[in-house]
Amino acid sequence: MADQAPPAEGAGPSKNALKKAQKEAEKAAKKAAAKERELAERTKNQANEPDVSKDNYGELSMIGSTPYTPSGDKRVKFSELKAEEEPAVFRCTVINARSQSAKLAFLNLRQGEETIQAVVAASEKLSKQMVKFAGSVSAQSIVLVHGLVKEVKEPIKSATIKNLEIHIQKLFIISKAVPQLPLQVEDAERPLPEEGAAEEPQKDDERPRVALATRLDNRVLDLRATHNRAIFTIKSGICQLYSEFMQSKGFTMIQTPKLLGAASEGGSNVFECTYFDRKAYLAQSPQLYKQMLVSAGFERVFEIGPVFRAENSNTARHLTEFTGLDMEMAFEEDYHEVVDLIVEMLLFIFNGLRERYSKETDIIREWASGGKNTIEDFKLPADGKVPIIPFKEGVKMLREAGEELGDYEDLSTPQEKLLGKLVLEKYGSDFYVLDQFPLAVRPFYTMPSPHDANLSNSYDMFMRGQEIMSGAQRVHDPELLVKRCRAMDPPVNPDGAGLKDYVDAFRYGCPPHAGGGFGLERIVSFWAGVGNVRLASLFPRDPSRVLP
Amino acid sequence: MADQAPPAEGAGPSKNALKKAQKEAEKAAKKAAAKERELAERTKNQANEPDVSKDNYGELSMIGSTPYTPSGDKRVKFSELKAEEEPAVFRCTVINARSQSAKLAFLNLRQGEETIQAVVAASEKLSKQMVKFAGSVSAQSIVLVHGLVKEVKEPIKSATIKNLEIHIQKLFIISKAVPQLPLQVEDAERPLPEEGAAEEPQKDDERPRVALATRLDNRVLDLRATHNRAIFTIKSGICQLYSEFMQSKGFTMIQTPKLLGAASEGGSNVFECTYFDRKAYLAQSPQLYKQMLVSAGFERVFEIGPVFRAENSNTARHLTEFTGLDMEMAFEEDYHEVVDLIVEMLLFIFNGLRERYSKETDIIREWASGGKNTIEDFKLPADGKVPIIPFKEGVKMLREAGEELGDYEDLSTPQEKLLGKLVLEKYGSDFYVLDQFPLAVRPFYTMPSPHDANLSNSYDMFMRGQEIMSGAQRVHDPELLVKRCRAMDPPVNPDGAGLKDYVDAFRYGCPPHAGGGFGLERIVSFWAGVGNVRLASLFPRDPSRVLP
Repeated sequence: MADQAPPAEGAGPSKNALKKAQKEAEKAAKKAAAKERELAERTKNQANEPDVSKDNYGELSMIGSTPYTPSGDKRVKFSELKAEEEPAVFRCTVINARSQSAKLAFLNLRQGEETIQAVVAASEKLSKQMVKFAGSVSAQSIVLVHGLVKEVKEPIKSATIKNLEIHIQKLFIISKAVPQLPLQVEDAERPLPEEGAAEEPQKDDERPRVALATRLDNRVLDLRATHNRAIFTIKSGICQLYSEFMQSKGFTMIQTPKLLGAASEGGSNVFECTYFDRKAYLAQSPQLYKQMLVSAGFERVFEIGPVFRAENSNTARHLTEFTGLDMEMAFEEDYHEVVDLIVEMLLFIFNGLRERYSKETDIIREWASGGKNTIEDFKLPADGKVPIIPFKEGVKMLREAGEELGDYEDLSTPQEKLLGKLVLEKYGSDFYVLDQFPLAVRPFYTMPSPHDANLSNSYDMFMRGQEIMSGAQRVHDPELLVKRCRAMDPPVNPDGAGLKDYVDAFRYGCPPHAGGGFGLERIVSFWAGVGNVRLASLFPRDPSRVLP
Repeated sequence: MADQAPPAEGAGPSKNALKKAQKEAEKAAKKAAAKERELAERTKNQANEPDVSKDNYGELSMIGSTPYTPSGDKRVKFSELKAEEEPAVFRCTVINARSQSAKLAFLNLRQGEETIQAVVAASEKLSKQMVKFAGSVSAQSIVLVHGLVKEVKEPIKSATIKNLEIHIQKLFIISKAVPQLPLQVEDAERPLPEEGAAEEPQKDDERPRVALATRLDNRVLDLRATHNRAIFTIKSGICQLYSEFMQSKGFTMIQTPKLLGAASEGGSNVFECTYFDRKAYLAQSPQLYKQMLVSAGFERVFEIGPVFRAENSNTARHLTEFTGLDMEMAFEEDYHEVVDLIVEMLLFIFNGLRERYSKETDIIREWASGGKNTIEDFKLPADGKVPIIPFKEGVKMLREAGEELGDYEDLSTPQEKLLGKLVLEKYGSDFYVLDQFPLAVRPFYTMPSPHDANLSNSYDMFMRGQEIMSGAQRVHDPELLVKRCRAMDPPVNPDGAGLKDYVDAFRYGCPPHAGGGFGLERIVSFWAGVGNVRLASLFPRDPSRVLP
């Protein structure tokens, strides 16, 4: 679980790349200025020659704050479009607009994942002024379109809807995008620079690749890229699958407090707040509370909520705020009852992702591998039996592969990754459990193993050799808990504020229980095979980023 | 929306009540000491006379941390129990245990909502020592029982399962509760003291009622009370119903950041944290982020997450940390598209609560009204048409009822409650919408009304005359947004850190949108008719409480 810092992200673009980017920006600025002039001149032109289309295009007054009678027109989705005699009416985003001639303009339009091509052709009923207007709409503007849907003979390459195009009859701007965007969405749709090659063009004919920091600085535009929609559709889907499974197993959804009166989990990785005339601390996990709830008679609980870690780790897999999927449950005779349920839950999620989100998975993997879709599918064991490997056995496998490590030492990140490979070779699974970790590397509330005083009833779960989940049977005996608190280095004070209520919870009768916590962003990024957890957070937080 | 402080909670118990409580505590202590002695003497007795049951009772060694071979016995739930020849095996909580004679002990046992009576009777196969042991198990201990399930002739009054009892054959303590609990669960199950009468016995023959503060100080025991299980089952159920509805309408579940680099929503009600070498602030709502996500192309988003308010409000309806159910969506022509969807969603939740959680609702209402179940059912309009009342109309109704208030003044809490009554009389609904609030009393991002410059496209939703939800169409035009920022008193800086990214989001093209946010704890408490939102929070936070 120890972490290694990855290579520094984007040591800055090269001079060449900067020059090229600068040129592009200048070109874009000129183009934008020309478009603005066009728009400005439209009114003048209109005065000069009669405009048969003058009521059919232009900027709409502000929806909602100007008196307006709703048209009641049915607004359609791209997915519902078919060739019809009646015009379709819809709202969409303009990907780009260009005038091919004074009489013809093309627009690429988008709604969610779907894109379609539209034409504006001058005729007796459609003025050249309107063509000009259409060709000059700034990219990313939101427009209202009335148009005929027609089938095309040649499939359209540049759109996801290949057999249809829109012949625009009316075109109104609902919300105009500024002509110069700080980040082009089409650039965001291209892959990240390769490691250490930030903003560097990959080949001579390519535009420079945009570094992660630039994307995150302009996240609202970045998120408009198709792969980002797919990432967050999957993230939402995992929450849904998780809730579905847990509720089917009789778990109660809980909300534990995030503001704590004491830094009860200990350690230095805690954010401190002012709380009226005192201090409070942000919860590093729902750990103590979900256990108190087991004692309070809620035998099966789960939570989806933020987790805060004031850890100064600038790696590709750490965030200071992430979404924890937590659970805790009482068991009868053996904590493997809980391990088995968690494994079943993860299989339910992985299979659910395969069934419901294979399109999104493909989109992300294609993006992450630069259009090559070389990211291996996530492998699950053919017989459905997920390997549960004792820690000792893992150590043995690593030693046989040439690694040197002690019996009760935690694994380093490279060792975890290596073990992931070895397990994949041996068991054909990218998902496995490492069981019975050394007691010394786990928190004070971890139940010692009955078989070896140096081990514990704790487990980590891994995807592609990277930890996504940590869990254990907890000490439900107050005397042993106090002993374990005192045995820590530095010792934990079982009578301290915050901890006293926790320890007391076990003096009131509490069933044996175990549980675990997952990082949602890790599951998303490891599933899709994207390298950085930041990509799975809408507005990621790390030691140097807390905006936007 | 202005708030009034309610009468101070529990001015302290009266002398009489204290005396009585003291006596009871002494009695309990004596009883407990006697039980302890009994347990201690058991070993001695065992040495004196042979014990035929010696392997069938006692304390189990710690499950999970002592070598043990799982029995594999099927553990049953109380709900599955039926009279059979084979003994049933189950884990449960001891509500209380008492020896009736040297040969007979009774135990009341609990699993979740269900309770059952058990007997331990001495026989050739069951020793008196075991009867003694059984009668002395401390309340709230967790035990493992092997027993025959038998039908009874007379219904058992003191248990929820009235037709069965358990004839115990084996009895093991899994986790022993200390004999003296700081709060008796049976006391927690009785109602709160009436206002201003904290800890006061209601009648001579009753035990003192336990004040809210005492309950919250001992929340793990308090939560074991049946009404609390029902409250949090309903809370979990509302989350499930909400997610179910939103997902059926194409909403994406999101997680917005709770750590913000700037107090972007303004105001003084924000908690400040240390964030490495700088400051950060806890999100007062997902407002700005959910709107940025609409601009980012996520047209329908919802969130279930914590909301932090550093508001020094010590009322029955304020918490410093609560669970926000937030949503935001793009609309086509009129923000009432969104209002209608929210109303549909709330009806889905209310009807879902009726269908799935009527038992829990009854339990809570019976508790809250002191066993009298006098709390009125939550009324919905017979024709399904939820009243959407213009603010102006609401003002008129209040004036007709004798209230004095200006055209563009916000309502006070008593006025809100009065209006709730008037609406209930007129429309037969405990749920209604107040629409088009004065612009001056809403945040800077609220869209002004097209019909009256002093009003806005904003709305509150009410349950039983109390606000549960606030929402509005938002300004999606960057220039108007900047103007509105500057028009506030004090003005909001649209170029400030945190706000600049937000305002910029609308420069990149953004559809018109509206949304809202609910306080989950308010819905729970107003639905059930319990008076205080603290009762709907597992570990409530207010200005003077941040522990446990």
